[in-house]
Amino acid sequence: MDENIRSVELHKAYRLLNHGPTVLVSSSYAGADNVMAAAWACALDFSPPKVTVVIDKTAQTRQLVEKSGYFALQIPNAGQLELTYALGNSSLGDTPDKVERSGAKLFKIDGFDTPLVEGCSGWLICKIIPEPHNQTTYDLFIGEVIGAWADTRIFENGHWKFETAEPRWRSLHYLAGGHFYAIGDPLVVSGSN
Amino acid sequence: MDENIRSVELHKAYRLLNHGPTVLVSSSYAGADNVMAAAWACALDFSPPKVTVVIDKTAQTRQLVEKSGYFALQIPNAGQLELTYALGNSSLGDTPDKVERSGAKLFKIDGFDTPLVEGCSGWLICKIIPEPHNQTTYDLFIGEVIGAWADTRIFENGHWKFETAEPRWRSLHYLAGGHFYAIGDPLVVSGSN
Repeated sequence: MDENIRSVELHKAYRLLNHGPTVLVSSSYAGADNVMAAAWACALDFSPPKVTVVIDKTAQTRQLVEKSGYFALQIPNAGQLELTYALGNSSLGDTPDKVERSGAKLFKIDGFDTPLVEGCSGWLICKIIPEPHNQTTYDLFIGEVIGAWADTRIFENGHWKFETAEPRWRSLHYLAGGHFYAIGDPLVVSGSN
Repeated sequence: MDENIRSVELHKAYRLLNHGPTVLVSSSYAGADNVMAAAWACALDFSPPKVTVVIDKTAQTRQLVEKSGYFALQIPNAGQLELTYALGNSSLGDTPDKVERSGAKLFKIDGFDTPLVEGCSGWLICKIIPEPHNQTTYDLFIGEVIGAWADTRIFENGHWKFETAEPRWRSLHYLAGGHFYAIGDPLVVSGSN
């Protein structure tokens, strides 16, 4: 594992998602790996940390998530703009080598089977809390975060370092049609700590 | 209604939330109005548009949402930083005049009873889709968007105008402890439209 990657305390894992970044969703089952991009992922609880993510019925990743019971959410950055868009706009069904074509390289963390995308800013490995009604009716999946990590060059001690890190580390926030925004400048409320 | 406010086509309403802004949640029941801030709101579907939002059991707004069956999500901006933080860090229980104290002024749109906060960038009025298990177990509410509006100075024809509008219009993305980030610069994937 890259020496810059450190585990994040689980009760602070929500901070990786709290500012609303677009994420990459990865999963693996029976030797098949896949990664998709998703703008509709959100924190759901602090401790134990939980998340929601919307995964369409047409997404090949969905089968891997449902069969394995696990998925990872990871926070890509401006340096991964093309990779993120490619993973959101191609399907394993049409393009069996979509992950390789996107430029994404996968790795694993000891003790976990879910593949992760190298070069992201943070990673959350989640175990599905089965809610068949939500999954069927709304394509909505709930996961408990069982492990969280971040690259210390951009997230450390529970805080993002966007204001001091290189611009390539900015998180991505998707609008539509290939148009993203990078996260911007800090705004601190006067009198807050 | 302010002349800059225009309705947003419902199938494009998700674009108000897609980039992950912190929102204000308002509701009203039997003459009582309240507004809270929430970082955990997310799009759930395109058409008909749906959203999710997490509303804690301790939030006074929750009672108004549950009793009325309606809530509004609105997207505050950098010009409303202090107001947004104040609405997220005071309770109607302790501070009966919390809305007035925050500086928020409420208005309504013809045909809708849910109060909205003046000066925001966009507004989504939502009707609850009752899901008692989600509400009780996860504090998770699902709403169908029945009306959407935006201030044309910052959102028009389905697109945000962050790159050309004044900085006070930037959306807010909450981290923790009074620390927000404003949305930043556009990043457009080469070859996309």
